[in-house]
Amino acid sequence: MPDAPSPTATLLVACRDRTGLVAALSAFVFENGGNIRDADQHAEPESGLFFMRLVWDLKGFVLDRPQIRQAIEHIARRFSLQWDLTYTDERARVAVFATRMPHCLYDLLLSHQLGELGGDLVAVVSNHRDLESVATHFDVPFHHIPVERIDKAGAEAKQMALLDSLRVDLVVLARYMQVLSPGFVAHRPGRIINIHHSFLPAFVGAKPYHQAKEKGVKVIGATAHYVTSELDQGPIIDQDVCRVSHRDDVEHLIRKGRELERQVLTRAVRLHLERRVLISENRTIVFG
Amino acid sequence: MPDAPSPTATLLVACRDRTGLVAALSAFVFENGGNIRDADQHAEPESGLFFMRLVWDLKGFVLDRPQIRQAIEHIARRFSLQWDLTYTDERARVAVFATRMPHCLYDLLLSHQLGELGGDLVAVVSNHRDLESVATHFDVPFHHIPVERIDKAGAEAKQMALLDSLRVDLVVLARYMQVLSPGFVAHRPGRIINIHHSFLPAFVGAKPYHQAKEKGVKVIGATAHYVTSELDQGPIIDQDVCRVSHRDDVEHLIRKGRELERQVLTRAVRLHLERRVLISENRTIVFG
Amino acid sequence: MPDAPSPTATLLVACRDRTGLVAALSAFVFENGGNIRDADQHAEPESGLFFMRLVWDLKGFVLDRPQIRQAIEHIARRFSLQWDLTYTDERARVAVFATRMPHCLYDLLLSHQLGELGGDLVAVVSNHRDLESVATHFDVPFHHIPVERIDKAGAEAKQMALLDSLRVDLVVLARYMQVLSPGFVAHRPGRIINIHHSFLPAFVGAKPYHQAKEKGVKVIGATAHYVTSELDQGPIIDQDVCRVSHRDDVEHLIRKGRELERQVLTRAVRLHLERRVLISENRTIVFG
Amino acid sequence: MPDAPSPTATLLVACRDRTGLVAALSAFVFENGGNIRDADQHAEPESGLFFMRLVWDLKGFVLDRPQIRQAIEHIARRFSLQWDLTYTDERARVAVFATRMPHCLYDLLLSHQLGELGGDLVAVVSNHRDLESVATHFDVPFHHIPVERIDKAGAEAKQMALLDSLRVDLVVLARYMQVLSPGFVAHRPGRIINIHHSFLPAFVGAKPYHQAKEKGVKVIGATAHYVTSELDQGPIIDQDVCRVSHRDDVEHLIRKGRELERQVLTRAVRLHLERRVLISENRTIVFG
Repeated sequence: MPDAPSPTATLLVACRDRTGLVAALSAFVFENGGNIRDADQHAEPESGLFFMRLVWDLKGFVLDRPQIRQAIEHIARRFSLQWDLTYTDERARVAVFATRMPHCLYDLLLSHQLGELGGDLVAVVSNHRDLESVATHFDVPFHHIPVERIDKAGAEAKQMALLDSLRVDLVVLARYMQVLSPGFVAHRPGRIINIHHSFLPAFVGAKPYHQAKEKGVKVIGATAHYVTSELDQGPIIDQDVCRVSHRDDVEHLIRKGRELERQVLTRAVRLHLERRVLISENRTIVFG
Repeated sequence: MPDAPSPTATLLVACRDRTGLVAALSAFVFENGGNIRDADQHAEPESGLFFMRLVWDLKGFVLDRPQIRQAIEHIARRFSLQWDLTYTDERARVAVFATRMPHCLYDLLLSHQLGELGGDLVAVVSNHRDLESVATHFDVPFHHIPVERIDKAGAEAKQMALLDSLRVDLVVLARYMQVLSPGFVAHRPGRIINIHHSFLPAFVGAKPYHQAKEKGVKVIGATAHYVTSELDQGPIIDQDVCRVSHRDDVEHLIRKGRELERQVLTRAVRLHLERRVLISENRTIVFG
Repeated sequence: MPDAPSPTATLLVACRDRTGLVAALSAFVFENGGNIRDADQHAEPESGLFFMRLVWDLKGFVLDRPQIRQAIEHIARRFSLQWDLTYTDERARVAVFATRMPHCLYDLLLSHQLGELGGDLVAVVSNHRDLESVATHFDVPFHHIPVERIDKAGAEAKQMALLDSLRVDLVVLARYMQVLSPGFVAHRPGRIINIHHSFLPAFVGAKPYHQAKEKGVKVIGATAHYVTSELDQGPIIDQDVCRVSHRDDVEHLIRKGRELERQVLTRAVRLHLERRVLISENRTIVFG
Repeated sequence: MPDAPSPTATLLVACRDRTGLVAALSAFVFENGGNIRDADQHAEPESGLFFMRLVWDLKGFVLDRPQIRQAIEHIARRFSLQWDLTYTDERARVAVFATRMPHCLYDLLLSHQLGELGGDLVAVVSNHRDLESVATHFDVPFHHIPVERIDKAGAEAKQMALLDSLRVDLVVLARYMQVLSPGFVAHRPGRIINIHHSFLPAFVGAKPYHQAKEKGVKVIGATAHYVTSELDQGPIIDQDVCRVSHRDDVEHLIRKGRELERQVLTRAVRLHLERRVLISENRTIVFG
């Protein structure tokens, strides 16, 4: 791994009245001795909203973190900003939920081990024991929380207690085969990422590869999205596709799909952890 | 254009009991002095059907065309084949239906002019006069057949009379903005190709780019399919996709989509005219 | 075509010392009543250079164009900027050079006709008469300037006089089969775009599809680049690729390549005309 | 894993005079009670060679394996065939060579564990101990054979003895950072697969991502090829690419490249093990 670079601050903002906002924020960085590393913005004419991502070096910055927060709060009031401020040296804590399929879990764990995920993988949670050795191999604690049909609420209560005790910022569903309750989801808005094994909105629901085969499509896909209370309808973070043909039976589609699923999921998690994703109603702005 | 190669025969077959079929057909070609140029097959376990495409050189073949037909009929009875036999020197006759958008029409006409389409483009038919100069530029006759809401049946009758008089084998809907009646479609099963400007089955119906924007997808697509009586539900011949982002407004999606539409449509028409496509229920087998 | 939006100014800058630059430029826009429409930047650690693209609305802006120029000059001196300022209502003038192959020319002309090119196509120049009817069909003046081996300098002199008289900003080589002299090229740095029919730097020079077939590659490509005095070595603007197989003979590669060539060239020209491309030594920064 | 299907025989042939060959081979299968599962062929006009892959069910086939071999030998003499005959229940034995980078190794091991590789992974061989725990995790024996600069021959002798003792059919270089000697390579023609981290033939040799960055390409690639005595020049089995931009520094290119490398390598190994690859001079025919 290369040397850790000096920390940076990342500010994400959304607002309605933007006149002078870029000037105000860049002046704030400049006047306090900072250097803008990256700045990106997007105006959404449909909603009238404006989005911005601003990254600056903390090396030589004259304000400390409480002072930064205070200064941003001041600007936020002036422009009615919604905002989110993070630092690269305060890494997000991630829990992966999985069931029996290992491919997405391996990809996340390997990406983490190679130091490219942008967060800390602190737990693997599963309703089965099949993947325990995978988590152990990568030195990530494994938590077995069985989910019985007659007591899903009890299982979710245990999961939530665990997530709270581990101070988890992001939950990643890596082909986790249980539907989370609306209560669980409402608790973590924009903090649960799922991988769906189709090109949403095509093939919502169960067995999308069988649906794809049935329809005779020539391209299959995978979709990473934030989980909302509506199944398979949350804001899409990333998607990808690959070509298939009549020669691909359902087994082949599943194999090709696995490739897509793990790539798209890991990419989406990385985008989230690098603070590149903003949610606007049911869509995302992804600053690439 | 390169020299015309010597003609070949292309046989497409579908059947249920295939034991000995490849041996019988290859013996038929060999024993009559032919040389197999290309052979491809596909067994579909779901339906129990078997599909084959066989291409052989006619140079030196001892049977003439009526005799070939007779011999194939003999084999077909033995194996209960559905079959279709064509010759590369008897080119299919194609009519393109368009309305006002020129991009797909240009692509087909240019592909035809470059000698890569595999058929003869004998007519451009439109309910408007906007594209007349395009057809004329490429020396293809243009036919203006207005379609009035109160007399669609009359317009279709004129269209059908024209297609019959021109002995048209294939109708290509190049962003033709009228829905064909079930009667028109039933008359030409597997002989009408449409381009839909979405990744079907996502975004069936009108304004798919607006639907795509609304859903916040990260990939858009286009689909070429045979027209059946169910709107946007016919067998898919080809599809393609491209990445989009939050930066792409609907105008951009339409522009990127145009690229996809014309590529996918021209490719599908060429696959059809090269006799590479077989239809099985609501899916296609495309021998690439 | 939709209504013309109100004009915007686009400023491209490159510099070494950037501290405070974003603040200075955004203050300049804000304090003069402008609204930033788009801002993008890139720091290149290898060279220590910093690049920025800034777009703002001119509606309500209190400075007129000479005043804007004066103000930017002031900032430019302070930060030692290299800069380029354009307005969307002062469209660039483009000449296309072609020889006999029509596909790239059609694509540019159609894109222009559909209003998506971002500049004005004012001339088609060719050493042959084959494509005259294509230019005429799209109402673009055609200029036949023969290039004889014994007097290439004379032909180039005529081309340059024509370009000067038409006040051409950008020359696009749309499969133009003549190598331009170093003098011609030196005269228009970063103002000549070529399409090379390979994935550069693989297959430099002549007959790249034959080279690709010889090497048995599984992917072919096309590359749009600025022309410099070194053949096929100028800064790359865009590239794309498609899969091929052993079944593709050289004719097929050429056909598939044509698709790539025209897409990549038109895309590169549009990126240039939208002022999204900056050149840094032998590479480009493309603000997408 | 699904039930093992009944075994099939796969015959690969290459020859010059093909007249009657398809008829002879399909008659051989039919008359002995076999059923053709898959047949594919390719005529290469440049070389005059003809290639064929024939797969048939052994269930109900009246000949045993020695008799099949005898019968094929008979046909082979008649048509001067080069041929290769394998059975799906006699799985190829594969050794993976790696050094320190884990990503390709994980991909192969996981693919093997999921039952999709089409061969048996019997050994991981490395000149370092870093990846021992990875092999162990997947229950594949790990062999540490150090390679010292002063005694590469000795190390290769140990490797070859190991491969012989394990009856290894295929060696896969999964980012193995040592160049094999011509002797080692000559010993296993068409039996060593390497992954090169560029779109060959661009960026031959060391540090291709640095070369790609230097050239400013917009697409990077990876290439799986058979190893020959000429470095990075062996027949290409598969390639893939992904888009990059000026924003991607070398670290990013390496990360994106890792994705390509492992996908392309695993795909190439699977194609080889499914007996879909034929070598003709310095190119491959890949029956997809």
